[in-house]
Amino acid sequence: MFLKNCWYIAAESREIGRQPFGRVLLGEPVMLYRREDGTPVALEDRCCHRRAPLHKGKVLGDLIQCGYHGFTFDASGACVRIPGQDRVPAGIGVRSYPVIERHRYLWIWMGEKEKPDPALIPDFHYTDDPNWAAVGACLHVDANYLLLVENLIDLSHVAFVHTSTIGSNEDTKAELKFERSDGFVRVVREAPGISCPPSMRALGFAPVVDQKKIITFAPASNIWIDIPTRDAAPVAGRNEPMQRRVMILNAITPETERSCHYFWVNARDFDQDNAERSAYFLKTVTFAFNEDKEVLEAQQRNIELDYDAPQVNVHADWGGVQARRLMDQMIRAETGAD
Amino acid sequence: MFLKNCWYIAAESREIGRQPFGRVLLGEPVMLYRREDGTPVALEDRCCHRRAPLHKGKVLGDLIQCGYHGFTFDASGACVRIPGQDRVPAGIGVRSYPVIERHRYLWIWMGEKEKPDPALIPDFHYTDDPNWAAVGACLHVDANYLLLVENLIDLSHVAFVHTSTIGSNEDTKAELKFERSDGFVRVVREAPGISCPPSMRALGFAPVVDQKKIITFAPASNIWIDIPTRDAAPVAGRNEPMQRRVMILNAITPETERSCHYFWVNARDFDQDNAERSAYFLKTVTFAFNEDKEVLEAQQRNIELDYDAPQVNVHADWGGVQARRLMDQMIRAETGAD
Amino acid sequence: MFLKNCWYIAAESREIGRQPFGRVLLGEPVMLYRREDGTPVALEDRCCHRRAPLHKGKVLGDLIQCGYHGFTFDASGACVRIPGQDRVPAGIGVRSYPVIERHRYLWIWMGEKEKPDPALIPDFHYTDDPNWAAVGACLHVDANYLLLVENLIDLSHVAFVHTSTIGSNEDTKAELKFERSDGFVRVVREAPGISCPPSMRALGFAPVVDQKKIITFAPASNIWIDIPTRDAAPVAGRNEPMQRRVMILNAITPETERSCHYFWVNARDFDQDNAERSAYFLKTVTFAFNEDKEVLEAQQRNIELDYDAPQVNVHADWGGVQARRLMDQMIRAETGAD
Repeated sequence: MFLKNCWYIAAESREIGRQPFGRVLLGEPVMLYRREDGTPVALEDRCCHRRAPLHKGKVLGDLIQCGYHGFTFDASGACVRIPGQDRVPAGIGVRSYPVIERHRYLWIWMGEKEKPDPALIPDFHYTDDPNWAAVGACLHVDANYLLLVENLIDLSHVAFVHTSTIGSNEDTKAELKFERSDGFVRVVREAPGISCPPSMRALGFAPVVDQKKIITFAPASNIWIDIPTRDAAPVAGRNEPMQRRVMILNAITPETERSCHYFWVNARDFDQDNAERSAYFLKTVTFAFNEDKEVLEAQQRNIELDYDAPQVNVHADWGGVQARRLMDQMIRAETGAD
Repeated sequence: MFLKNCWYIAAESREIGRQPFGRVLLGEPVMLYRREDGTPVALEDRCCHRRAPLHKGKVLGDLIQCGYHGFTFDASGACVRIPGQDRVPAGIGVRSYPVIERHRYLWIWMGEKEKPDPALIPDFHYTDDPNWAAVGACLHVDANYLLLVENLIDLSHVAFVHTSTIGSNEDTKAELKFERSDGFVRVVREAPGISCPPSMRALGFAPVVDQKKIITFAPASNIWIDIPTRDAAPVAGRNEPMQRRVMILNAITPETERSCHYFWVNARDFDQDNAERSAYFLKTVTFAFNEDKEVLEAQQRNIELDYDAPQVNVHADWGGVQARRLMDQMIRAETGAD
Repeated sequence: MFLKNCWYIAAESREIGRQPFGRVLLGEPVMLYRREDGTPVALEDRCCHRRAPLHKGKVLGDLIQCGYHGFTFDASGACVRIPGQDRVPAGIGVRSYPVIERHRYLWIWMGEKEKPDPALIPDFHYTDDPNWAAVGACLHVDANYLLLVENLIDLSHVAFVHTSTIGSNEDTKAELKFERSDGFVRVVREAPGISCPPSMRALGFAPVVDQKKIITFAPASNIWIDIPTRDAAPVAGRNEPMQRRVMILNAITPETERSCHYFWVNARDFDQDNAERSAYFLKTVTFAFNEDKEVLEAQQRNIELDYDAPQVNVHADWGGVQARRLMDQMIRAETGAD
């Protein structure tokens, strides 16, 4: 059971061109391509004729032609041509999904509403705001998407999973503040006086820094992590403490109950034109998020050995617990399960 | 659920020798070998003692000895020797299947009848008729066998899947005629004035040809495709239009509900002694049928995402729909499900 | 369903050090490590917090720290530290399993009893008795553990599976004696006058030997095979017949219903200090037991095609049948299924 009536990332903008592209989202086969004018199309990736995946077919102008028997569909999913016969029966076609390109991503709406509100698309403006430089990728993870949501809301794991990259092993005593409203869950972690994480040392911080993390979760599975870092001690020849801000954007789209697509962005408000810096962050954060992938997939395997094994919640889990509760309420409301 | 009371191909003749050979057919493990006089034997590939597959054992004369504890069976499946004891309990053994070698194949009967009628073996005489030259192979396909049956009955896919090999991309306006009797389903496709398919160009046809395809399906899963092709325009220095006939024989034996063994033959009534021509057809058709395999396996994966997704039938599907209906009736009759 | 209230081998002593080690036993994730004083610890390999496997964490002194959020457990499984908070809620932790190191193995008790009797640990003293030299290994087998138990109790397979290594193909007429008590099943195989098995020829036996095999099975899945071999004919210059004894120890720990860990030892009462002899036996027996693995995995695949296919028991199966019956009775008694 997934939340349907919300925007999910279907793909990075750069992944989709004139070649048809297939991906399973929320358990459904979806295919994407661009019209001649560059606007994106998202259709059910299953021909209405014999269920072959359309992404193995050909884009012809703005149409997609199935690679099996040549059934051809327009960008609304309507079947417009059936080879071997003059008429196309009324009303046949494949499902079309609203898709909007924004902030370097293609956002898809898989719920029932035909004209969903673009204003509900999560704010990922950091990806194309000139004040920020952003790098990112899509990581396939063989674990239920909520395990990744929990991972990102409770950043106490950083001091254990990522000490060689983005974490400081002293970051275990942060002060936590929690907030929940109808639409989001927020956790603020303040970690004063920790050693500068390896990935930030090259920036010239003092050896000891104050680091704050403002983590905001909004359904279905978007997490913003705003990370201001600044010198915690004077540095010779520096009048004011150095301060830098990193924003980690995360959007997780379930593939199946056991796997998900993890779209992440690392945006920074400094050295925006420094390509070497960008390459460094892309490499380091990719490495770090593969550390998470390893943990999450091991968790998933363990859970599948015994779905009912109990687990304990502690203070730091407040955010993850609230996020699961919020999702549960929204899915129940959507399916009328209440 | 498979149709049991009919002949299926178990193996190509050349696959079976004095070494025991194992293959799963209709969900059952079957093993094959040849007696000293060369006649084939088909037995349950599961020792009656501890269920080890007999094909991992040894052929001794006309007997097969299990590789685990040495239980030995004659060609009727009767256990004739148990190491370590003098007597063999009465009546123990493994199931024996009627098997007949004909037309370069071993045909097996997996139904209940002990003496099935050899006259019911499908007519594959083109494989060893001196008027024809035949090449062929066995392709393992991870898809339900009926998807392959549909594929072969509705050749409108040729203009989309096989345009670099055996198809012409203009072959989308064929005239179709349909016929169904109790025992078979037939589709006749007439495609006048299409460009000569790539695989036939070397034969010297006019650039434009008339091509007919007479497709005959008979349960369980045999499909004959008779393809006469001839010049559609005069060729300089040629008094009569060139005409050539290719016969594609197809026999599909289910392995499981999700996989099948696809035995195919490409026979031709010309250049019978031309080994180069044979090699060319073997290579080209193998390539083409692997194009089908890719489509069929993608279809199967899509179907497994949602078994209940609807599909639309159009004019060209008449043959496939009738074939499924015929199979369904016969399986119901056999199992008494009506 | 596995028998729980008994000792199983969890690992070879040499497999476990200060690095945490994970293995699935009886369907449960288990992790092992050694305390600073070298004594072994066995814990549930699933953090009580978010179910990450503890074996991916770090051993700190005598404690194990989860690699995800740093929850830390002592060797009794009690949670002693939760990063980010001062207090640890009372009573939380992971399950601890009694584990005893004996005879080069770590023996684990996965049943309910907290203080199981170490006297019930199977007698594997041959592994570290100075009168014996022992080699061994752990083999992972994708088959139900009882298939391997049957394999080891009915050694009539040796004359078919292992004729190039540890078996003689003449060893098919052994005299069998059977014995069953409440706690064990015993089979004695006497094979006089067989050709010396390949693996023993280098020892200088006469070409023909008398070989006895005393096979003792005790639940859950320990099998001792005592094999005295001696010259069956005079050898020039030898006053008394040469006699050698090999003891094969086997302990099988189920991983899942479809797979198991097979711990085996080949111990000998001769050439104890001959490293070359040890290397030879390790290599040869490893090869032979991989022959078994191939048969067992093929059996398992066949069984999964049809769980209900019947099988026949003969004289030589008495031991295996009794072993299965004994296991069945004990499991029923343990689970109260009677």
